[in-house]
Amino acid sequence: MKLISYRAQSSTHLGVVIEEDKVLSLSSLHDLYKDCISQEFTIPNDMKQFIEQNETALPYAEALIDCYLNDQEVKDLPSCFLSDVEIIAPIAQPEKIICVGLNYMDHCKETNMEPPSSPVIFSKYANAIIGDKAAIELPINSNQVDFEAELTIVIGKEAKCISEEEAEDYIFGYTIMNDVSARDLQFADTQWSRGKSADTFAPMGPVIVTKDEVGDPHQLDISLRLNDEIMQQSNTNQLIFRIPTIISFLSQSMTLKPGDVIATGTPPGVGMGRDPKVWLKDGDFLSITIENIGTLSNHVKKHHLTKYNEHSLLTSK
Amino acid sequence: MKLISYRAQSSTHLGVVIEEDKVLSLSSLHDLYKDCISQEFTIPNDMKQFIEQNETALPYAEALIDCYLNDQEVKDLPSCFLSDVEIIAPIAQPEKIICVGLNYMDHCKETNMEPPSSPVIFSKYANAIIGDKAAIELPINSNQVDFEAELTIVIGKEAKCISEEEAEDYIFGYTIMNDVSARDLQFADTQWSRGKSADTFAPMGPVIVTKDEVGDPHQLDISLRLNDEIMQQSNTNQLIFRIPTIISFLSQSMTLKPGDVIATGTPPGVGMGRDPKVWLKDGDFLSITIENIGTLSNHVKKHHLTKYNEHSLLTSK
Repeated sequence: MKLISYRAQSSTHLGVVIEEDKVLSLSSLHDLYKDCISQEFTIPNDMKQFIEQNETALPYAEALIDCYLNDQEVKDLPSCFLSDVEIIAPIAQPEKIICVGLNYMDHCKETNMEPPSSPVIFSKYANAIIGDKAAIELPINSNQVDFEAELTIVIGKEAKCISEEEAEDYIFGYTIMNDVSARDLQFADTQWSRGKSADTFAPMGPVIVTKDEVGDPHQLDISLRLNDEIMQQSNTNQLIFRIPTIISFLSQSMTLKPGDVIATGTPPGVGMGRDPKVWLKDGDFLSITIENIGTLSNHVKKHHLTKYNEHSLLTSK
Repeated sequence: MKLISYRAQSSTHLGVVIEEDKVLSLSSLHDLYKDCISQEFTIPNDMKQFIEQNETALPYAEALIDCYLNDQEVKDLPSCFLSDVEIIAPIAQPEKIICVGLNYMDHCKETNMEPPSSPVIFSKYANAIIGDKAAIELPINSNQVDFEAELTIVIGKEAKCISEEEAEDYIFGYTIMNDVSARDLQFADTQWSRGKSADTFAPMGPVIVTKDEVGDPHQLDISLRLNDEIMQQSNTNQLIFRIPTIISFLSQSMTLKPGDVIATGTPPGVGMGRDPKVWLKDGDFLSITIENIGTLSNHVKKHHLTKYNEHSLLTSK
């Protein structure tokens, strides 16, 4: 199932994408077909709640879709095309945005870093999250903003001290994240949090694809295009630390929660690894495609400061 | 005003601490005295919501307390003693737990690190938050768990690109955090996120004190006691980067939100800086006292694994 969060009539909806580009509102499906389903369930309008209840919510949603597809005379269901809705990030406030650094061998080489002996973990805050088609905003205090295409795990249930063998059970599905990074801030600080967590630095989506539809997550083509040029092109079979290892590793000390997202690292080709280096600039257009998941597209714009704020900065030391 | 979150009758309440050790439920005050106050307002039961609405909520809460204190025959208000309620962390799910590393000169020396030229920013996740009196649990994968007493800022309103001069306006108040740290994980990873974010590694509270009652936040005695011994003792006048600098610095790239917490760094005396080094062990008792704020107390216990999980770990690589 391909799930999206979207905005329409100034409220947030949970939708399912069918036939490539058609969006069905899950709550509308529920209103139309709830009486056809023996099980009683209230479908949540929030992705994190949906994931928390996924053991019931997923089969229920599948039953709703079946009712719709088998309905000979489909009533006035407010379906629409993917291109016509305002897609927002699939999850607005995960408890954790966990990132794995240096997880493709060739990316370690291009950044002149040693391949790590265990996963390098860092974090972003939810202020960084934006959805598909939203703008990545260049911060006022960085001139070295870079891109990173990443396959991203969405956790499906609470995980603490689990083994690699069990990890699969705790995965809800996968999405795409662009781990946008201000290299000047990242390396000035030694710790990466600030350079990774500027507003708009975690474009995510457009969809979450449930794990059953993704197939083998370690056999997915992944690529990133900047304007007309393909900058990153690899396959998730190049991951140094694979998905069960990452989940088990994290869960030894922290409880992973439904809706937590884990970006698994980026392949070679980022801007800082090039000669000359490539930094994002106003007007750039980025798209990341991961096989069986989809394409996440975002444009880049320069920071927008009001006069008030410009004045504030001038008076700041 | 000293605000706490506490649990009673299996639900969460917002309370005000008066006369040192007496807790008044804000919603009970509201029920009793709302008709005495000209302004209409519904007092939230959640600290983050209270802080988001603090420009109205704070004066309203003050008016309620005045009504109570002036009530000649106080009715059956369910007030209670601080020691009788189950205090929980003042904020359960801040969008951000931001930490400033190496922010006391002598702490840099004891950890053999250079004093930084700009604030060193790292993060914890909300899974780490526990309240006063709750147990710090030693993770199964660490033998070097350490303590760090920290004055912690609570943000009161959205802040983006603000100057140092404006920073004060964006502060709601202050609390205490113990920045518990697994040194073996922290330094194995180079990035500190994992070593800082084990479950229970962010004891916080017991109260949030509004900034008007704290006085000068750069003139507060801060100390940490481990069992019978004072391990850290300093004053916030020793901060390398002061509070307005930290807030302005962060806000240049990320939007700070109401309820975000910023731990300002720890003074000398942590376990890793000692000879021999001191690591937390089962049964230890920690308390952090910060002048004008209060005392945060937590005991330490070893990890608790069920048989099921022990089996999982044995099968894990």
